[in-house]
Order: sequence, then C-alpha cells, then structure tokens
Amino acid sequence: MHVLITGASGMIGQRLTARLAREGTCNDRPISRLTLTDVVAPPKPAGFAGPIEIRTEDAGDPAVAEALAALRPDIIFHLAAIISGEAERDFDKGYRINLDGIRNLLEAIRQEGIHNGPYVPKLVFSSSSGIFGAPFPASISDEFHVTPLTSYGAQKAIGELLLADYSRRGFVEGVGVRFPSIVIRPGKPNASAGGFFSGIIREPLQGLEALLPVEDSVLFTHASPRSAVGFLIHAAGLSREQLGPRINLSMPGVCVTVGEQIEALRRIAGERAVKLIRRAPDKAASDIVKGWPTRFDAARATALGFKAEKDFDEIIRIHIEDDLGGHLPN
Amino acid sequence: MHVLITGASGMIGQRLTARLAREGTCNDRPISRLTLTDVVAPPKPAGFAGPIEIRTEDAGDPAVAEALAALRPDIIFHLAAIISGEAERDFDKGYRINLDGIRNLLEAIRQEGIHNGPYVPKLVFSSSSGIFGAPFPASISDEFHVTPLTSYGAQKAIGELLLADYSRRGFVEGVGVRFPSIVIRPGKPNASAGGFFSGIIREPLQGLEALLPVEDSVLFTHASPRSAVGFLIHAAGLSREQLGPRINLSMPGVCVTVGEQIEALRRIAGERAVKLIRRAPDKAASDIVKGWPTRFDAARATALGFKAEKDFDEIIRIHIEDDLGGHLPN
Ligand SMILES: NC(=O)c1ccc[n+]([C@@H]2O[C@H](COP(=O)([O-])OP(=O)(O)OC[C@H]3O[C@@H](n4cnc5c(N)ncnc54)[C@H](O)[C@@H]3O)[C@@H](O)[C@H]2O)c1
Ligand SMILES: NC(=O)c1ccc[n+]([C@@H]2O[C@H](COP(=O)([O-])OP(=O)(O)OC[C@H]3O[C@@H](n4cnc5c(N)ncnc54)[C@H](O)[C@@H]3O)[C@@H](O)[C@H]2O)c1
Repeated sequence: MHVLITGASGMIGQRLTARLAREGTCNDRPISRLTLTDVVAPPKPAGFAGPIEIRTEDAGDPAVAEALAALRPDIIFHLAAIISGEAERDFDKGYRINLDGIRNLLEAIRQEGIHNGPYVPKLVFSSSSGIFGAPFPASISDEFHVTPLTSYGAQKAIGELLLADYSRRGFVEGVGVRFPSIVIRPGKPNASAGGFFSGIIREPLQGLEALLPVEDSVLFTHASPRSAVGFLIHAAGLSREQLGPRINLSMPGVCVTVGEQIEALRRIAGERAVKLIRRAPDKAASDIVKGWPTRFDAARATALGFKAEKDFDEIIRIHIEDDLGGHLPN
Repeated sequence: MHVLITGASGMIGQRLTARLAREGTCNDRPISRLTLTDVVAPPKPAGFAGPIEIRTEDAGDPAVAEALAALRPDIIFHLAAIISGEAERDFDKGYRINLDGIRNLLEAIRQEGIHNGPYVPKLVFSSSSGIFGAPFPASISDEFHVTPLTSYGAQKAIGELLLADYSRRGFVEGVGVRFPSIVIRPGKPNASAGGFFSGIIREPLQGLEALLPVEDSVLFTHASPRSAVGFLIHAAGLSREQLGPRINLSMPGVCVTVGEQIEALRRIAGERAVKLIRRAPDKAASDIVKGWPTRFDAARATALGFKAEKDFDEIIRIHIEDDLGGHLPN
C-alpha cells in the first residue's frame, strides 16, 4: 500500500509519518511505499523498510496536485495548510492553500481516474473545529450548523463540502477529521491566538514563564498530538458503509477550563511550575477566543471508535513522554 | 442606484426584472440604471425610464465577472445557475457555473475595490434548500447543519460560505436567500425530479393530464415566484446590523403534502381538474424526493420580515393571476 502525506513537515505530519514508518502498517495493512510532500522539505523518517520519496513543492499549485495523483497512492493524508492567523492576515494565500489545495487534489484524483483507469483512493482531510462559529449551544452536536467566523474556518468548511460531494460521486473515499485544539504543541511560543493553551503548560514544564491572556474560566476542547495521529489513522480505516453520507466528523477531546488545565499542571509538576504562569489579560485575545467553539458532543466519532484522552493530566503526560524524553526537565 | 441581475432570463430573473422596472425602485430607493446579464439574451423589460444594458455572456467566465464588477453596480442579484438535475449530470458545468460563478464575482468585486477605490455592493445570492440533506428532524431549524446530497446543493452551500466570509471581511454586503421549492413554475413540464410539484397543478388548470410519480403523503415546502421576487428585494434592503454574521437565511414557505396540494386544486378548479392527475408511481423519483428537506422553521427570516403565502390555495391563485391572465382557461 502506497501512502502519501501532504504537509508532512508539520507538527502532526511529522508524527504521523514517524508512526507509519515505525509500524510499517496502517490499520494492519502493510505499507510498501511512502511519499512525503511539503513546501518545507520533510525530514526522512527512521525505521521504514520500503522506498520513501521526499518532495518539496507548493500544495496550492494545480500541477503539484496532478503529479501527486499520477503516483496513484492508496491512502492520502492531506494535512498541508496555513493556520488560522495567517489565513486571516493573508486572504489570498489562505484561499490558495487551504481551499484550492484540497480542490485541486480532488480534481486531480478525478481526472487521474478518468484518463488512466479507475482510481478511488482513501483521502483523509484534516479539518478543524474552526468551521463552527458563535453563538453556540452548551454542547455542539453533530447536527449543529457550519458558520465559520474566520477565513480559515470557511476554507476548511468548503473543503469538507467538496470532499463529501466528490466522495458521494464515487471519485474518492473521503473522510474529514475535525480536530479540536491539539496540545501541547512543542517548540517555541507562536503568535497564534490560541497559543497560550499550549504555552501555559509547555513553558512552565521547562522552567520558563508563560503569559495567560484570558480568564481561568475559558472552556475549550483539546486532544494530544498523539491522538491527532490516532484520529487520522483510524479515519483511514473506516469503510464507506461505516461512514454513511456524512463523512466529516467532529473528533472527541478533553473539555476543560484554563483553570482545570492549570490544576492538572499542578498535579504533575507542582506549585513551582504553576507559579510561572503570569496573568496578562488581553482583551483582543479574549475576544477572539470567545468566538471559538467550546464543547463538542462528538457522538458519531465516538460511536465510530475515535478515542482521545480521558483528562488533561493524560495530555500533559503524553507531552512529557513524546516531547520531553519521558521525564520532567529539572 | 444601479442594479445588476445575473440569470436575468430565468424564471425568477425575468419576474424580478419586470417588478424592478415597473416600480422603478428597490425598497423605495430609486433605480437609475439596470444591467441584465444571462447566457441567453435577457428580454428588455417594459416601463423603465432609465438606461437598460442587456448583456449576453457566460457567468462562469472570470473575465465576465471582472467586467460586471467594473460597472460598480450598487445592488447585484446573482441568480445565474444551472439547476439540480443538470449539475448532477454535468459535474464540471455545475462547478463552473454554480460555484466558480459566485466565487469569480466575489473576487472581482474585491479586486475592483482594491484597484479602483472602495467598492462594497449589496450582493443577494439565490441559494436553495438543497443545501440540506436527509436524515432530517421534523422541522429544519436555522441551526441545522449543512449536508447536501447533490452537487448542486454542495455548490450552493459553498457559495453561501464564500459569501459569508467575503461579507465578514467587508468586501461585499452579502445575503443568501435559501429558496424553498418555487411553484407553480410556468411553461412546459421539464425533466427535473421535482417538476411534478408544479405539473400536478399547472397541467390540470389547462385541461391537460399530469403524472404524479410519488405518494400523496410526500411533504414539501413551497412559495410562489412572486414570493421569490419579494424575498430577493426584501433581502437587498436588510442592513448588516439586521443580518448579523449569519447572512444565509432559510426562507419561509407553505409546507403541504401532495395530497393537500391536490385538495387546494380541487377547491379552486374543481373535480374535473383533479381527475386529470394520473398516479404513476416511480420509485426513482420517490427516492430522490425522499432525500429532500420537507419542513423549515425559518424563524430568523420570519423575524426579519420575509413573507410567503399563507396556504397553497394562495399559491395557485397567484399562478392564475400572474401566469394565466387572472382567470382559469376553460
Ligand atoms: N494543530 C491543531 O491544533 C489543528 C487544529 C485543527 C486543524 N488542524 C489542521 O491539521 C493539519 C496539520 O496541522 P499541524 O498542526 O501539523 O500544522 P502545521 O502548521 O504544523 O503543519 C502544516 C504544514 O503544511 C505545510 N504547508 C503550508 N503551506 C504549504 C504549501 N503551500 N504547500 C505545501 N505545504 C504547505 C507547512 O509547511 C507545514 O509543514 C492542518 O491542515 C491544520 O489546519 C490542526
Ligand atoms: N426555482 C426554484 O424552485 C429555485 C429553488 C431554489 C433555488 N433557486 C435558485 O434561484 C435562481 C433562479 O432560479 P430560476 O428558477 O429562475 O432558474 P432558471 O433556470 O429559470 O434561471 C437561471 C438562469 O441562469 C442562466 N444561466 C445558466 N447558465 C448560465 C451561464 N453560464 N451564464 C449566465 N447565465 C446562465 C440561465 O440561462 C437562466 O436564465 C437560481 O440560482 C436557482 O438555483 C431556484
């Protein structure tokens, strides 16, 4: 089985690549070949026996989509995207990468099937809870309507609709995975409005100060990067029959307040870590976060076997295992 | 005020044009100029004092969108589209006209504003209840999610998302009007799956036989062509403040079963007319119609002042007034 990953250099892309390379299978089916593509050269994963092709190219270019479809991969994980903040600042870039990226890929797959014989790959699309926009009910059900309040959310929502229609027509076997917030994101603090959800845990664990721009009562739904990879792989294993016509699914997660995140940090890393969180209320950041969805029902995904962490403690422990070598830095 | 209508040769486009030309105003604001465009030459309406430009061109062509935006109309009614059945048969054509048509227009408006000074027209987009797909609750609320089961529905749903995002960014003042079924459609029977909703009234009123492919219990929501025009004009008069961020609205209508439609026909045209309806059950047609939304809540549109008929009798009477010269043919 040939697996293609776009956005393979990204936070989730690298972890997905590492797991598939290490295990050599995807849902117990052996992987014979890996193709990794990103606008930034994807690192070569360790431990994979078969051929790995590394491509550095622009996912917004229709010719790139054609070249990828011509490889006829069996499973495609389409992760290439620019994030919310950048899509909001650069309107054209957001539409080119986040919308045209998936549309070009779908169309290239369809054309490949028309011109070179039947070709219906599995296509796993990374969507986002950003397709929802306030005002919200207490818990967002699988039947809540799609009203994005960012260009990024609109682009992902359109990607979902295209994926569903191309799937319904039999051109592709699509499944859209709506990630909640994926934390703890390793690396340096970034400028994204929700960066503090990771920062208030990541920085203190390393003995560094972290700023908290919102109230402790802010509620949000999170899952670990390990769960994000698990969602993608599990999605690739679902059949059309299991999915039915509604192929875009809100993923489960841990719904906690910022205060509860901090209590989890206290349990795991003690008072010393918690003291490194500095309240720095920022109305602009608060207002952005208020437009974001808080709690999901995710009943369908749960029934289909998608699993996230039980509590925020577990999310922190996974960060320590996967990113900090298994123990707290001292 | 300069008003542009795309799809001006269509069933609704011609009626909208006729009303605007006759009244010379749109929501009490005087119309100084009319531009009518369609791929089929739009007929020149009677009774308009100002200049009328008639254009025959393809709404799927980006150059056409640019040329239209360069005219800087104050209000644009974007009606050009191909219908559900055709969009399902011809995948490429559907996406080119129904999706690229609105996207090109939005982008041309934005570019016009960037290059030639501020330009933020009112853009009224004709969407459809086809953005919804089964399974449905008993009544589809304004918060029900968008899960089209046709390519036409997907294209309209994507148009709504683009319209909302371009509006949110301040490039246009958009409003999306989701029509229910618009009946009675004048003219010859057509091949559309829902054509019988008009046919079982229109043909018998003219002494002709009509086929009924579905059960009498089939429930559906309808409004007259006169209401459709009313919705579009009312939408053009709503301010951003009235609309809020959720600019796409399900319109009200008359929710009746086919059996109730037939009873209304009996009240208006007698048993002789009803006898002309011939039951010809067709499983394929039945199955298509089962995927369509039945009943809407339309609470937001109603609160915003959109009005449809009270009952199906009124819809038949409007057909007689507007299409049959005010009296039943004998
Ligand atoms: N991390 C989250 O919390 C989260 C939440 C919801 C959705 N998602 C989605 O999941 C996917 C992966 O997220 P991530 O956290 O790994 O993001 P990331 O930003 O770390 O990775 C995205 C990758 O896409 C690549 N990319 C950007 N522009 C490209 C272009 N023009 N051509 C090719 N590649 C391009 C980037 O180089 C990057 O490697 C994205 O689609 C994202 O929108 C992530
Ligand atoms: N009538 C209904 O029941 C109904 C229901 C829901 C939505 N709508 C929507 O309302 C709008 C008007 O509906 P209608 O009933 O008048 O439809 P119609 O088919 O009578 O009119 C559509 C017009 O678009 C024109 N058109 C098609 N392709 C074009 C192209 N490439 N370039 C320019 N023009 C093109 C056609 O020539 C036609 O005149 C459409 O957008 C339709 O999707 C109608």
